[in-house]
Amino acid sequence: MPLAHVYVWKGFSDQAKKKTIAGITKVFEELGIPPHAVEVIIHEIPKDDWGIGGEQACERFKDMQPP
Amino acid sequence: MPLAHVYVWKGFSDQAKKKTIAGITKVFEELGIPPHAVEVIIHEIPKDDWGIGGEQACERFKDMQPP
Amino acid sequence: MPLAHVYVWKGFSDQAKKKTIAGITKVFEELGIPPHAVEVIIHEIPKDDWGIGGEQACERFKDMQPP
Amino acid sequence: MPLAHVYVWKGFSDQAKKKTIAGITKVFEELGIPPHAVEVIIHEIPKDDWGIGGEQACERFKDMQPP
Amino acid sequence: MPLAHVYVWKGFSDQAKKKTIAGITKVFEELGIPPHAVEVIIHEIPKDDWGIGGEQACERFKDMQPP
Amino acid sequence: MPLAHVYVWKGFSDQAKKKTIAGITKVFEELGIPPHAVEVIIHEIPKDDWGIGGEQACERFKDMQPP
Repeated sequence: MPLAHVYVWKGFSDQAKKKTIAGITKVFEELGIPPHAVEVIIHEIPKDDWGIGGEQACERFKDMQPP
Repeated sequence: MPLAHVYVWKGFSDQAKKKTIAGITKVFEELGIPPHAVEVIIHEIPKDDWGIGGEQACERFKDMQPP
Repeated sequence: MPLAHVYVWKGFSDQAKKKTIAGITKVFEELGIPPHAVEVIIHEIPKDDWGIGGEQACERFKDMQPP
Repeated sequence: MPLAHVYVWKGFSDQAKKKTIAGITKVFEELGIPPHAVEVIIHEIPKDDWGIGGEQACERFKDMQPP
Repeated sequence: MPLAHVYVWKGFSDQAKKKTIAGITKVFEELGIPPHAVEVIIHEIPKDDWGIGGEQACERFKDMQPP
Repeated sequence: MPLAHVYVWKGFSDQAKKKTIAGITKVFEELGIPPHAVEVIIHEIPKDDWGIGGEQACERFKDMQPP
């Protein structure tokens, strides 16, 4: 422990994944948890499959892209 | 809030996704929650990866397809 | 299938739970899925444990209550 | 009930999936639960998306493969 | 890896938890995975919060108890 | 998006929750995502319900406490 499941839009770059994993691990390290105990699982979700306000993100946020 | 993670068999159509997102959002709207606060994330799961009664759904429900 | 995990703020009333379960089940029934195949699991999350915009919901949405 | 979401590295073989589904179902059967009530959902996660100790599993466990 | 999130009805006994954790770990061990790499997280869900077929499990399965 | 479900041992302090929420939000902010779009949900799991290596964490890590 701890374990984080992170859900992002599909297209999240490898660079963004590396920074997410390293960054979240560091958040817990600063709380005194040894880094080897931290797991982060990233789930890429197509914008068609993510609904906000009743609409697919591919329509509502047509022009936004993940980092 | 609220947030719904919905798991369905792979092959769920775009039309079914739209209806799922709109429909679940409306369920919460009828409880007095503003629609923009509702998130619905759909996860398509291959039938090989979904087990029921000890068997893969691709065997147990060979002839069933998602809507 | 399908299966929905629904996350709401702690304090969600029994009436709201009943309507959430019945309503989401009906959304899938209207897609042609038999109701007995639909599962809905509600998770009540204390507002202290739900962060939005970097803050706990108990601070950011001090005056809001779940239905 | 019960329901198990199982997260493994991408590349988990069909044989391993079958054994995971059958095996977990049997664990619950031995507790007196009828097998038809047990659901197991397997999620294959690319090693790039699974972080341990601040690093992607594709780097930290370069030579390990799922069964 | 692997990681299993297991959802059961509230009231699951300590004995059942021990057997679930040991049993699922053994399923993966038989696939060649070292036991120390297996994590199992059990989530106890009140029967009021688990809907099947549009109804709460506390109504639909009034007389059933978890092991 | 993004959304993070964080699983920790029960007893995680309010201070640790605040730092987890603020810290994870900042990780995404540094990737160019506006903070109001980031949600973090913390799930406290009793050590009896978290299995590692086939044993409950309350036995295997008897003397460890969450921050």
